[in-house]
Amino acid sequence: MTFANAGTLGTLPGKRDELVTHLTRRSNMLGEIGCLVYEVGVADDHPDTVFVVELWKDEQSHQASLALSEVQESIAAVRPLLSGEFGGFRFTVVGSPLHG
Amino acid sequence: MTFANAGTLGTLPGKRDELVTHLTRRSNMLGEIGCLVYEVGVADDHPDTVFVVELWKDEQSHQASLALSEVQESIAAVRPLLSGEFGGFRFTVVGSPLHG
Repeated sequence: MTFANAGTLGTLPGKRDELVTHLTRRSNMLGEIGCLVYEVGVADDHPDTVFVVELWKDEQSHQASLALSEVQESIAAVRPLLSGEFGGFRFTVVGSPLHG
Repeated sequence: MTFANAGTLGTLPGKRDELVTHLTRRSNMLGEIGCLVYEVGVADDHPDTVFVVELWKDEQSHQASLALSEVQESIAAVRPLLSGEFGGFRFTVVGSPLHG
């Protein structure tokens, strides 16, 4: 079943846009391993936070992605930008009004 | 620019699945007014919470949707199911690694 991750990543002051650049770097691999949606964004009222919404083919695909070397390297690269504040939630998709 | 809403809706005990049924009822209107994604879900560790992730063509589309009679009626119908606990966040999408 489709798995969703909605998250917030706090950054050190002024590092938000650098984190956005990392997270939006084109990756063919993500789609190949089951990532259906991966939107990255910002909000004016939270200048040091990056927001993400991800949809995955299933929870296993998401878990497996975290073990990939490309993803591990990306996580290591952005760690110096992060404040350590994380938020959000994960859930199993059970339906949508857009497609029955 | 694409607008995202990721939210949690607390329900009264045992009312979660009834809220899911309401929120996943097929609506052609939502797509017509600019809703791109609307996924509804649940999580085992939060038995009285419904989760949603929405993507809209822009923030105006989302705002406009809240004023529609169909949406107003839906909100009125589910209100008795809600505990009053809401969470989540909204943001402006700035990019995606899937379609860089």
